[in-house]
Amino acid sequence: MRLSQMLFVTTKEDPAEAEIPSHKLLLRAGYIRRIGSGIYAYLPLMWRVLQKVSEIVREEMNATGAQECLLPQLQPAELWRESGRWDTYTKAEGIMFALTDRQERELGLGPTHEEVITNIARSAIRSYRQLPIHLYQIQTKFRDEIRPRFGLMRGREFIMKDGYSFHTDAESLKQTYSDMNLAYSNILRRCGLAFRAVEADSGAIGGSGSQEFMVLAEAGEDEVLYTEDGKYAANMEKAVSVPPEAEVSGYKKYEKLETPNTDTIEKLASYLKCSPTQIVKNVLYQAVYDNGKTVLVLVTIRGDRAVNEVKLYNELTKLAPEFGGKTVLGLQVPDAQSQEKWASKPLPLGYIGPDLADDRLSSHKDLHPQFVRLVDRTAIELKNFVTGSNEAGYHVVGANWGQEYPTSKHIVDVRKAQSGDRSVHDPSQTLRTARGIEVGHIFQLGTKYSQAMGATYTNEQGEEIPLVMGCYGMGVSRLAQAAVEQSYDKDGIIWPLALAPYQVIITVPNVKEPKQVEVAEKLYQELIQAGIETLLDDRDERGGVKFKDADLIGIPYRIVTGRSLAEGKVEVVERATHKTEQLPIEEVVLVLKQWITSQK
Amino acid sequence: MRLSQMLFVTTKEDPAEAEIPSHKLLLRAGYIRRIGSGIYAYLPLMWRVLQKVSEIVREEMNATGAQECLLPQLQPAELWRESGRWDTYTKAEGIMFALTDRQERELGLGPTHEEVITNIARSAIRSYRQLPIHLYQIQTKFRDEIRPRFGLMRGREFIMKDGYSFHTDAESLKQTYSDMNLAYSNILRRCGLAFRAVEADSGAIGGSGSQEFMVLAEAGEDEVLYTEDGKYAANMEKAVSVPPEAEVSGYKKYEKLETPNTDTIEKLASYLKCSPTQIVKNVLYQAVYDNGKTVLVLVTIRGDRAVNEVKLYNELTKLAPEFGGKTVLGLQVPDAQSQEKWASKPLPLGYIGPDLADDRLSSHKDLHPQFVRLVDRTAIELKNFVTGSNEAGYHVVGANWGQEYPTSKHIVDVRKAQSGDRSVHDPSQTLRTARGIEVGHIFQLGTKYSQAMGATYTNEQGEEIPLVMGCYGMGVSRLAQAAVEQSYDKDGIIWPLALAPYQVIITVPNVKEPKQVEVAEKLYQELIQAGIETLLDDRDERGGVKFKDADLIGIPYRIVTGRSLAEGKVEVVERATHKTEQLPIEEVVLVLKQWITSQK
Repeated sequence: MRLSQMLFVTTKEDPAEAEIPSHKLLLRAGYIRRIGSGIYAYLPLMWRVLQKVSEIVREEMNATGAQECLLPQLQPAELWRESGRWDTYTKAEGIMFALTDRQERELGLGPTHEEVITNIARSAIRSYRQLPIHLYQIQTKFRDEIRPRFGLMRGREFIMKDGYSFHTDAESLKQTYSDMNLAYSNILRRCGLAFRAVEADSGAIGGSGSQEFMVLAEAGEDEVLYTEDGKYAANMEKAVSVPPEAEVSGYKKYEKLETPNTDTIEKLASYLKCSPTQIVKNVLYQAVYDNGKTVLVLVTIRGDRAVNEVKLYNELTKLAPEFGGKTVLGLQVPDAQSQEKWASKPLPLGYIGPDLADDRLSSHKDLHPQFVRLVDRTAIELKNFVTGSNEAGYHVVGANWGQEYPTSKHIVDVRKAQSGDRSVHDPSQTLRTARGIEVGHIFQLGTKYSQAMGATYTNEQGEEIPLVMGCYGMGVSRLAQAAVEQSYDKDGIIWPLALAPYQVIITVPNVKEPKQVEVAEKLYQELIQAGIETLLDDRDERGGVKFKDADLIGIPYRIVTGRSLAEGKVEVVERATHKTEQLPIEEVVLVLKQWITSQK
Repeated sequence: MRLSQMLFVTTKEDPAEAEIPSHKLLLRAGYIRRIGSGIYAYLPLMWRVLQKVSEIVREEMNATGAQECLLPQLQPAELWRESGRWDTYTKAEGIMFALTDRQERELGLGPTHEEVITNIARSAIRSYRQLPIHLYQIQTKFRDEIRPRFGLMRGREFIMKDGYSFHTDAESLKQTYSDMNLAYSNILRRCGLAFRAVEADSGAIGGSGSQEFMVLAEAGEDEVLYTEDGKYAANMEKAVSVPPEAEVSGYKKYEKLETPNTDTIEKLASYLKCSPTQIVKNVLYQAVYDNGKTVLVLVTIRGDRAVNEVKLYNELTKLAPEFGGKTVLGLQVPDAQSQEKWASKPLPLGYIGPDLADDRLSSHKDLHPQFVRLVDRTAIELKNFVTGSNEAGYHVVGANWGQEYPTSKHIVDVRKAQSGDRSVHDPSQTLRTARGIEVGHIFQLGTKYSQAMGATYTNEQGEEIPLVMGCYGMGVSRLAQAAVEQSYDKDGIIWPLALAPYQVIITVPNVKEPKQVEVAEKLYQELIQAGIETLLDDRDERGGVKFKDADLIGIPYRIVTGRSLAEGKVEVVERATHKTEQLPIEEVVLVLKQWITSQK
């Protein structure tokens, strides 16, 4: 492609809207253009990158026997009502765009396709002889994000590969799940990315096991905990660990002490000169269930540990039947207004005890929220601990479970694992932390959707059995930007060879020098003949502008038809290292071909 | 691909929902599945066909220098407000799905992308040196059709190639338009389709010249008029012609006659024993402009001719400024209710004269509609004609323009051309008619969008000039179904080789015969090695079922590992002709390779 014939516009200035390097670079280098909040146009260079990612995904998926298809983006609301997700997705979380057509029928714009594929499966799959089956698609998806940001990382319209497999049983599902694990690793490796596969929370998709694939990068939204031996890696949301042991408390006697201005663990530990590990911390949350019921949640946890809200959300979902609901729609720290409504007098925040009593809450029947206490395992192990007294300015010390405080019936793990904790699986290993960009997520769904939607098959004995399902997602546009986030320098993007829109760029420093143009044109034709994807910068611009542009757009190899032409040579520059070689004109195509082939 | 591992379900019965053969066959053969009204899933076989169409489109587009990109499907309403199309597309015609996001911002689901691309062009294109430029995409589009039907033909979600070119002037646009004309013809030819390029109306897209590409098929929604010499072809909506000459009227004297029960042209001609060509017919329409104004339209035309409502719509759009509007939102024959509102007494339908007076209409200021008279050229040429008297049961005869009736100031062509008319360009040629499926449409847009949205470039003299635009659409999913509509028989689909999901199917009549399986497996491997796309029907089904399925899904060549194995041969059946050959096992791959290559 000749750059003079391309819609090619680069800018020097960082766009104000962009927060992370990859977003800035893709905008500056003219790969993408913003059309609206979280909505981007993929210009020709970007489209080539996306096609390369898609092709690698396609090859690896096909190799596992999965079959490509294309499902509709417009999805009838009734399918989502069958699975029970319509309200959650369009109202509570509101991440699905919903619309009504001219007949006033409701439709959603697909963020995912479990309902549509299960609808197809229930009519097309009849017998065990048709199983297993795995369909996938590469498609634009939609999410009405609360805060679209980081360009393609968290856009409202993005490209994904999503696949769905159907099985007779969990064994068969596990086989495909394991094939996908391998296929996803192959894809990321072939894309030239440093990544980690981690245990993950299944979130709103549901199911039992799930694993995420993280491209490692500083700007990643996710935190990953892993052991150095590589045997354990998990998303922070899901990670488990063995925390350091608590120090032994010196308070042998239960008593209430005045502790002025100690409404944080730090202040309290400093005032009492004790370790945060000797303190039992009590944190208030407010959960809203899908039946509209609000429940006040008191989480009791060791003072040096933080609450993992994803784990807390999952525990509260398990408790949903107790409150007549099915799922938690919202979870937050109650604001002053809620507290005012609930509490009979202001709650002594910072001084709350594990026994915060119902009678502290408003006695008005309609306002009285339901109340649940969850105690994290770290807190239950403490003896002679320090904790709140339910009176501002006072704490108690030397307290014990089963003595001053009844043992809770809900003992749970809602603790954030953190760097420095030991591995649950091998206590000799210490957890470390890294930041990652989630580009893939695979799930063992089980029968969640097939049961809700009546998708069954007939087994060898003639019995009707719900289909066992897996689903597998990979963010194609997100992966492309993650590649940039992982690989750039001050001059611009450094594409991995496998994803670069072109492998080689020929820069003519001065198009008014006939010899420069002649050699460039000749090499351009020869490179294309040799199957090398080549850009020819034949624009009437200064050499310096062209070199800067070539660095910015990140083409792996640059050929310059400049001064060395006098010696029958051209300059070849490797983008990643800026390493420069002078190569004879007649050898350059062969040498580049070798370099490129050797990296495949 | 092994059929036993595919989601492959065929049905014998015609699905009730399907109206035309291609729709029935695609459903029966398991290519597509209905998910909602006008919304289909493309299953793996269909997806392969769509990929083949896309790849041919891509190759031909790239060959012209057009560059592929991908624009967002979600389009901010403000862009459509700038072009003035938001209300027309979301309210009046209502063919664009509209939605609001969580911030209450309005978005449309793109049926077309003039606004988005013009928005990009106005910020990216600065100088004449960047022109011409042509961007295209292959993408799912959305239309909230009033009556979705015929499967993928008129769906609400469908795949299109749409391209947009930008130019310094009309000359440059014409060059690209002509390149596209050729590229579109190449695409349809390579897809193996019989088609016709025809002059077309530009409709809501706007602009000056436009041309449609019609795949010829009985079930086509469009009617095409063409001359046998191939020099003229036009969509019925746009077609012009020379109608047969009118007969000379025998009525020399103007008089009013009683003509009971003659409220149609047929009845009147029969009653008066005159030719319909001697009658001046007067037809009432009611047009609603975008400013809400309703205008009553009296169209006067020769009795044997019908009104072309697309031409009428265009004439009324030209008159819009007279009524303070910009565009016509609706055009229809007024119903009884409207008439009652307007007319001071019931209008004598069937007996209306060219002079239907304003005073026949309600005198109430607010109800009094504006009124316009349009006279078609065919009527203006008549002398001593017969026409309505504005009194039920009476007509006048021997009337003349300039005598009994004032000459209208709006003399127009709003006449439907029809089969048997002579060509305007060459009166020796007679127009014939055919039915077609519109799969492509190319437009010379001019500056409609660039002026509305302020998209300019700087010319060599440093002046800011609006960009000149073209746009080019091709329906990928519609083309795929049109191929079926053009080529099927009682047994099923007959794919053109270029679009078939697989080129060869190997049918094992009885998988319990080891020899049949062995030869099939061997040939399957060899065919794949030879680069031939092959399906292996290794299902445990009866031979008859498999043969029927192979015919239904329409794979061009079928290899049967049946009886002739005894002689070291297999049977090869050509789908289109059912022609059968017995070929030696060791030769079959080579022979098929030759047959397939020779057709490319």
